[in-house]
Amino acid sequence: MFTEMRVTEFLDALSSKESVPGGGSGAALGGALGAALVSMVCNLTIGKKGYADVEARMRDLLAKSEALRQELLRLLEADTQVYTQVMAAYRLPRKTAEQEAAREAAMQRALKEAAEVPLAIAERCAEVVDLAMPAAEMGNAWAVSDAGVGVLLAEAAMRGALLNVTINLASITDADFVREAEARMATLTANKAEMKERVMAAVNDKIQG
Amino acid sequence: MFTEMRVTEFLDALSSKESVPGGGSGAALGGALGAALVSMVCNLTIGKKGYADVEARMRDLLAKSEALRQELLRLLEADTQVYTQVMAAYRLPRKTAEQEAAREAAMQRALKEAAEVPLAIAERCAEVVDLAMPAAEMGNAWAVSDAGVGVLLAEAAMRGALLNVTINLASITDADFVREAEARMATLTANKAEMKERVMAAVNDKIQG
Repeated sequence: MFTEMRVTEFLDALSSKESVPGGGSGAALGGALGAALVSMVCNLTIGKKGYADVEARMRDLLAKSEALRQELLRLLEADTQVYTQVMAAYRLPRKTAEQEAAREAAMQRALKEAAEVPLAIAERCAEVVDLAMPAAEMGNAWAVSDAGVGVLLAEAAMRGALLNVTINLASITDADFVREAEARMATLTANKAEMKERVMAAVNDKIQG
Repeated sequence: MFTEMRVTEFLDALSSKESVPGGGSGAALGGALGAALVSMVCNLTIGKKGYADVEARMRDLLAKSEALRQELLRLLEADTQVYTQVMAAYRLPRKTAEQEAAREAAMQRALKEAAEVPLAIAERCAEVVDLAMPAAEMGNAWAVSDAGVGVLLAEAAMRGALLNVTINLASITDADFVREAEARMATLTANKAEMKERVMAAVNDKIQG
């Protein structure tokens, strides 16, 4: 379990020439950092004087950000597994036409999972971006910069995870699968950079205000 | 040492209502993730067939990204200490004019350090952004998406760290200190978003090419 490593050990593993963890897992951790920062804003708001009006919404927000954090850590591990499966399929024998066909089928199955996992990472990161807005708007003003750091890391992680989706889609022959994945990617790339800048505008307003 | 915690424990600590680690430390870890991903590209290039020509430059790049990774982890810890110092100064007694003056002096000293540390985090993250370009251009084409994830996380972390600088500068009365810090911030905000997009263009060229 890479998420049970010490922070320093995880970074050693990430930077090494070993194929896992890779950029998809790095993106998942970036998204989990973003989710943790949204949770921090909630935890610094719940029970604080002057914030009783928003307490119920902050509790709801916290439940969502904590669920996303756990899901992103699950996907961090999953990304290392799907990459290993692609490599295993790649190394299957292809001496006969039968072996060649079996290898190609295994490759396609593994590639679909290797696209699906970073796509899920990107979608969960996008949800963190969305949660940062109520955290910035309603949360403790003293912690608003933490919502800012959170939205920046989550949006960057989303965009990074999508790179890995693009790479794997290029080798997938199932046109329906590719079309559907590209539609899901387009939803994210169309909206989330703008949402991040809106959150940052709200954060800067509070910092300067 | 927060960096010696398990990844899951660090995220628990970050998301909690405890004041440290805060957003500055989250940004430092985002930058360290970016540096680790640049290192990964180097490690997947050095000694690989077809990359002998760039090996010396990749070794140089690796030494730089590894030094930045270590420095960002040191700054992650430092950010928790300076925040604790600001809180300690804030709690000093102020019943007499003498106490008031001593408290204000302690606050100003602590605030300067609490601005300096996230500014250093931002500057180190900006250096990671710069290193991502040769990693993307010269590194193993198979790992180019890792350079992309690295530059995205490092630039986001830089921008996040600068939020904490802004907040602390607002309470610092030494106009020369503030002016100098703002000049250092301006250098980063003027150039690094564009550099990130140039790296991303290089990454996308290689992915699609």
